Amino acid sequence: MNKKCMGVDIGGTSVKVGLFESTGELLDKWEVPTRKEEHGKYILSDVAASIRQRLAEKQIAVADLAGIGMGAPGPVLPNGFVEVCVNLGWKNLNPQEQLSGLLDGIPVRSANDANVAALGEMWQGGGKGYHDIVMVTLGTGVGGGVVMDQKIIAGQHGLGGEIGHIHVRDEETEVCNCGGVGCLEQVASATGIAGEARRTMAASDKPSSLRQYGDDVTAKNVLDEAKAGDAMACEIVEVVSRYLGLVLSQITMIIDPERFVIGGGVSRAGTFLTDAIERYYDKYTPISKQKASIGLAQLGNDAGIFGAARLILD
Amino acid sequence: MNKKCMGVDIGGTSVKVGLFESTGELLDKWEVPTRKEEHGKYILSDVAASIRQRLAEKQIAVADLAGIGMGAPGPVLPNGFVEVCVNLGWKNLNPQEQLSGLLDGIPVRSANDANVAALGEMWQGGGKGYHDIVMVTLGTGVGGGVVMDQKIIAGQHGLGGEIGHIHVRDEETEVCNCGGVGCLEQVASATGIAGEARRTMAASDKPSSLRQYGDDVTAKNVLDEAKAGDAMACEIVEVVSRYLGLVLSQITMIIDPERFVIGGGVSRAGTFLTDAIERYYDKYTPISKQKASIGLAQLGNDAGIFGAARLILD
Repeated sequence: MNKKCMGVDIGGTSVKVGLFESTGELLDKWEVPTRKEEHGKYILSDVAASIRQRLAEKQIAVADLAGIGMGAPGPVLPNGFVEVCVNLGWKNLNPQEQLSGLLDGIPVRSANDANVAALGEMWQGGGKGYHDIVMVTLGTGVGGGVVMDQKIIAGQHGLGGEIGHIHVRDEETEVCNCGGVGCLEQVASATGIAGEARRTMAASDKPSSLRQYGDDVTAKNVLDEAKAGDAMACEIVEVVSRYLGLVLSQITMIIDPERFVIGGGVSRAGTFLTDAIERYYDKYTPISKQKASIGLAQLGNDAGIFGAARLILD
Repeated sequence: MNKKCMGVDIGGTSVKVGLFESTGELLDKWEVPTRKEEHGKYILSDVAASIRQRLAEKQIAVADLAGIGMGAPGPVLPNGFVEVCVNLGWKNLNPQEQLSGLLDGIPVRSANDANVAALGEMWQGGGKGYHDIVMVTLGTGVGGGVVMDQKIIAGQHGLGGEIGHIHVRDEETEVCNCGGVGCLEQVASATGIAGEARRTMAASDKPSSLRQYGDDVTAKNVLDEAKAGDAMACEIVEVVSRYLGLVLSQITMIIDPERFVIGGGVSRAGTFLTDAIERYYDKYTPISKQKASIGLAQLGNDAGIFGAARLILD
């Protein structure tokens, strides 16, 4: 019998937990509030208690699981050690060892949550059927995850997949939270797109349907108004897509994956956005028509639990 | 007894062959002229005959070899198939199968020559002791090779390591031979540096020791005069180093290797060049002080035979 496995995705507000067949079928999922007090010392024991309870209800023994995978919101060393997770209050601990200890020594593996989400999309989402994918998550920031030969490339110093901090724009003047100036995240995240809209409105007197939103303009407003044909909104989408297409081209010339998967809230704009990105990706990659395709993420907020569960199946 | 192995590096003028201990010690090396007539049909039989003769002289049986690795100047599919090697006249053949057939069915593995050179530098050169390296070869063009976990990342469409064709310069007007405009190769190859020098001289009347070379100025002239303190030459080295540092930063944010190895003729400028590259690499990677170091290649033209031999040891 193929054993079941679990995926745990630790977020700043809640911990998502999923129970899976080893074939990738999601059997059950639930959430546990993230207790951040006292440097997050209760998070893992809360998770372990919740897992024990749910398994008991289902009459599944802990020993019947192949193991548990876990995604954490920060850099995770190959041995599972976490130096710091700002969002959780964690400092210098090994959550993978701790969770294993709390659950009778069951195998636990862990990795950074953005990388884990990429693995999830490869397994059962927008990258299903591919072994080499790069996921780009356009949310509050721009995250990334690189999966080669079905394995996460976390990098030697935890910088693998940090594509939001690739420098793309020399003319930028504001400083990114990484300390850089002109990062992809500063223009292509939801925050970045909204900022770009405010700056574009301020820079001219041209009429635009974006002006109705004033300084509260959001990335969704920009993409919706661009779809509706507003010239200024379209111009902003072109700028954003150009930098994203450029970065996909850079990735292709370095590791040449099979598939790019675009996720995060901004990706809800769908093929309207990916088609624009693809035009610039093609422009900056004339060397070959044979290159990675671009698709949309499909697992939404569940990518983390899928990828975490997949971690344990290697 | 550890078996010996061989590395074959097929170039447009000559084929380099090396005999190695499996520990990486080079026991012998020699060259065979590349006969390109009739679509290069004699190249592999010449190589096989030369190998048989040399082994006979040394009283080594073909069966005493663990195998032969081979680097070819073009894209090589995972099964060894080569669609086209322009420099050799090869079209639609499997040189790895052919060489094996010519040598009693001995194991033969092959890969693209730039990737193989990176593997060689990882094994016994500037990347020795590291498992994840990226080599950047600054020669007539800009080549690259990505090695992760001691394995070449050739990519799904043979574009892995094609970092010379990353778009870096929006202001470029000339077209690169890849069809792109503004590729790294157009500014950071030996050809590109010389072109940059000609353009910089033509763009002003400023005095410079570069002017003595006129339109025959070379990359070596630029680096030598920059070392001697010429302001215009220094300015050109800064431009070149900025784009190189930017691309190293991009690579770090994607796969975060342990070590960059800079090779090719231009790299003879030594740490004068790598120090300049490192300043910009640091500038564009403020996110972390913990990142891949930069070193010089050490194997010169032998990198190919070293890497080819290493191919067979996996």
